[in-house]
Amino acid sequence: MNVHMSEKIMRPDFQGEFTASILAAAASPDLISFAGGLPNPVSFPVEAMEKATAKVLAENGVQALQYSGTQGLPALRAWIAKRYETMGVYDVTADDIIITNGSQQALAMLGMCMIDPGDKVLVENPTYLVALQSFHMFDPKIIPVQINPDGIDCEKLSETVKANPDAKFIYVIPNFQNPTGLSYTKEVHDKVVEILKGTDILLIEDNPYRELRFAGEATDSFGKELGEQCCMLGTFSKIVAPGMRIGWICVRNKELKAKLLSYKSTADLHTNIFSQLVLAQYLQDNDVDAHIEKTKELYRAKANLMMDCMRKYLPEGVTFTPTEGGMFLWATLPDSITSVDLYRAALAKGVAICPGDPFYEIDRGVHTVRLNYSNSTDEIIEKGMKLLGEACAELLGK
Amino acid sequence: MNVHMSEKIMRPDFQGEFTASILAAAASPDLISFAGGLPNPVSFPVEAMEKATAKVLAENGVQALQYSGTQGLPALRAWIAKRYETMGVYDVTADDIIITNGSQQALAMLGMCMIDPGDKVLVENPTYLVALQSFHMFDPKIIPVQINPDGIDCEKLSETVKANPDAKFIYVIPNFQNPTGLSYTKEVHDKVVEILKGTDILLIEDNPYRELRFAGEATDSFGKELGEQCCMLGTFSKIVAPGMRIGWICVRNKELKAKLLSYKSTADLHTNIFSQLVLAQYLQDNDVDAHIEKTKELYRAKANLMMDCMRKYLPEGVTFTPTEGGMFLWATLPDSITSVDLYRAALAKGVAICPGDPFYEIDRGVHTVRLNYSNSTDEIIEKGMKLLGEACAELLGK
Repeated sequence: MNVHMSEKIMRPDFQGEFTASILAAAASPDLISFAGGLPNPVSFPVEAMEKATAKVLAENGVQALQYSGTQGLPALRAWIAKRYETMGVYDVTADDIIITNGSQQALAMLGMCMIDPGDKVLVENPTYLVALQSFHMFDPKIIPVQINPDGIDCEKLSETVKANPDAKFIYVIPNFQNPTGLSYTKEVHDKVVEILKGTDILLIEDNPYRELRFAGEATDSFGKELGEQCCMLGTFSKIVAPGMRIGWICVRNKELKAKLLSYKSTADLHTNIFSQLVLAQYLQDNDVDAHIEKTKELYRAKANLMMDCMRKYLPEGVTFTPTEGGMFLWATLPDSITSVDLYRAALAKGVAICPGDPFYEIDRGVHTVRLNYSNSTDEIIEKGMKLLGEACAELLGK
Repeated sequence: MNVHMSEKIMRPDFQGEFTASILAAAASPDLISFAGGLPNPVSFPVEAMEKATAKVLAENGVQALQYSGTQGLPALRAWIAKRYETMGVYDVTADDIIITNGSQQALAMLGMCMIDPGDKVLVENPTYLVALQSFHMFDPKIIPVQINPDGIDCEKLSETVKANPDAKFIYVIPNFQNPTGLSYTKEVHDKVVEILKGTDILLIEDNPYRELRFAGEATDSFGKELGEQCCMLGTFSKIVAPGMRIGWICVRNKELKAKLLSYKSTADLHTNIFSQLVLAQYLQDNDVDAHIEKTKELYRAKANLMMDCMRKYLPEGVTFTPTEGGMFLWATLPDSITSVDLYRAALAKGVAICPGDPFYEIDRGVHTVRLNYSNSTDEIIEKGMKLLGEACAELLGK
């Protein structure tokens, strides 16, 4: 038979196809890989999770295995609501939180609830590639706005907002953005608030890496100033563990919240309650801040090592912006080599990197690469960066 | 601000609104409820799950907490593939299976991959209300085909297929259908195969209740005869536990499988790997067939009791089709009372039932009600059915 699939799923998917081809080539376990975005497993609280699980099954075994509510476990939502105080937002309640299957699901839910074909959506340029993929499912017109070392380009944002007051939302990652590792300064943060206030453009703040700051000071969440004009997305993937797929949307607009819940109930009824209970128990019985501190120390050392290696091994002409947290570094190559050139040359030497291309809505053949430092041993970082430097130098004919 | 949501999410949602109003009224814990669709928690293998979890975290703690593949855990997929042998399908491999967040997510994934606005979709009339809701998100033209005590009406199906050869798919629940509790006979099964063979209409077989047959004999899966023309949906929710949200799609058409995986990767990256590992460990270390036997004995007794009570307490003119498995009974009221009349009258007596209306795409003010027997004690079934009988008799003026 011929399966006649939907037009929307048959549209070209540059991000998906590009990434699939990269991942297929980079799948060998013998490769040194800076291409992925995995947390370091030594940071996973396996023993504490085992204790939490035993407690949950002993005390709430039936609840953990039965169907449950679409919005998510109240105790877990209350913990998340309280956590917003550390981000400068004091009026969040458990009722504002929807538990999702990782914050990735939040993107799909917001896409469904906000985007009709042709609707305008603003994003940072470059931005998280799976956010682009996810929004593309709903066929919007995506308008990228340049991101600078201090955050989104406010002049360009201001122009774009004036020219597109009917844009549905702007999607931003203000802390240690994926892919660039860049963060918004307080100044840029305040200007963004000024530009968006009074418009009907929703700000979607994706914030998976904010808690992983090992230097400098973080800006508060946009929800502080923008209130219900801001949806705040979060996840336990980077601070506890990604395998349980537990993230959230903090949504304070009541109409939008009702529709997000209605859609989630048709999309999968509810998020795994077994894991929600285990996670809530883990958070109750353990000092998660102490746990995060340890992870930050680990990542700080790895980031510093990788930056040292970049200075030491990468040839002149390759630049990068030092980072103060998160999981990625972002390098810019000289005009004479594209990131795909370097990807190929590095792969030949046994090192996988992530070319910048799929993080852009429009630009292709770019000169930027994303390097992940969180998930490699120190030895591997040293060895891999040296090989990457050699690949780079050969391409530059040095 | 005004949040400008998508047109598709703002469309009227009869199923969602009707169900929400019923659930709100029926939420009191003091009510006797036959309205829901929960498995009986005494059937949950809490202790075995605790042992499985301890083993997984001790042996594969890091894997359980790290990101993992979109398609799902290979060992779990292999178990599911093998299980199809009990349904007459011998050529399923682990590679044909995609693990989903309950089979509910499979519906959303198939809706996304198959339906553009206006596309034709065939369903049984009545059918699972959240399937209707899920498909509605993609704005199809849904064409309902009557279901009879022996399965879908083949004469009507044949006419409908002839008149709509461009239909994208037909969605069926061949065993103990939700809401009607009805199953397809072998004769109807074979006729459906005959009608669909040679067309480009995909058959989506949703089969959550097949393993819960306590009398009679089940038909094989449609995948036996229809091969890649059939997507088979399944779930562990009714045979092990729903709280973990683990279901699957068995899809043997390679193009469709690639698109389903691509969409799932943008929708939530992957299903909770912690629960997948625990479930796979549980299945390896326990005799799930013996477990299912116990659940069936439990449900058989409850179904028989409820049927006895229906004969004893419901006034003449109320009919039902005896069931041989699953979780539901389906009663038809005399023409003079609608199911919503009975819902209100029963609620006043402290009993919640589920009116038939939201299970129909078109019909309203119907005379059918769904009664769940799996999740009540014997005392509650007896007491509740007596009250329901009284409510019914009063409405009939008897």
